[in-house]
Amino acid sequence: MRHKRFDGMDCPTARTLDQVGEWWSLLIVRDALHGLTRFDEFQQSLGISPNSLTRRLTELCDAGLLERRRYSERPPRDSYHLTARGRDLQPVVEALAAWGRKHVTRKKGNVRLRDAETGAEADPVLTDRNSGKPITPDTFTYAATRTAHPVKRDRLPPA
Amino acid sequence: MRHKRFDGMDCPTARTLDQVGEWWSLLIVRDALHGLTRFDEFQQSLGISPNSLTRRLTELCDAGLLERRRYSERPPRDSYHLTARGRDLQPVVEALAAWGRKHVTRKKGNVRLRDAETGAEADPVLTDRNSGKPITPDTFTYAATRTAHPVKRDRLPPA
Repeated sequence: MRHKRFDGMDCPTARTLDQVGEWWSLLIVRDALHGLTRFDEFQQSLGISPNSLTRRLTELCDAGLLERRRYSERPPRDSYHLTARGRDLQPVVEALAAWGRKHVTRKKGNVRLRDAETGAEADPVLTDRNSGKPITPDTFTYAATRTAHPVKRDRLPPA
Repeated sequence: MRHKRFDGMDCPTARTLDQVGEWWSLLIVRDALHGLTRFDEFQQSLGISPNSLTRRLTELCDAGLLERRRYSERPPRDSYHLTARGRDLQPVVEALAAWGRKHVTRKKGNVRLRDAETGAEADPVLTDRNSGKPITPDTFTYAATRTAHPVKRDRLPPA
């Protein structure tokens, strides 16, 4: 799961990709956010082979994103539940989904995100918590600290 | 680039993963957001082989996330720039980075995102555009449309 190729990259984004493993595993996280818990549910939803699913579920458990709970002893059967760490990937999943709705499918998905209190459909946008401004490359720009890679210090203003 | 395994999955998240290709390519998008444009800059920052970088840059251009511009004829040299479609991945990159800062590195990265106007450091959070509420699995829940997969219709309230 922890790919060696990211070892030298002390960057939160690289380290996150490393933890989640393959892109594809994020679809399991998405399905778990959608309430699926059992092996056969994930398999039906994703249409992947039992072997692949077993491997990915194990990786996600090892990374602390899912936890396994035994719900039947005979036959032995486990269910899979998001940890707090896994649930915190919801913004990543929803940011990807928002991009896909805008740039790929150009329609809403089959599962909708709603305000639990009012039932109003959500329109997810990444904002700055302090100012409430939407984050775009025009309104928010990057600055490099002194420990940033030299090629970034060359290109960016100092932080 | 367009992986066959997602073909049957008519979901904005799956389709996005499909477009971006491998996870790893998102680090090139991140570096492009940080202002890098040239082959040798990406290579220095990411420390990958020229062959891998060439392939990934080509994939990102083919997917319409980067565009190539010739900046020198002798020797022939291209630079790579985010398209509008590629720039719109910033929320995905920043959501991943925020998760990594919280759950993996537990510190800020070497490149900081700042309000272009005020210079204040950003604290990116996914919110609902209409209500301004932060999106978490407690405050926003999912509902299934009639075209959702049966396992999701079983688990979720109707949309």
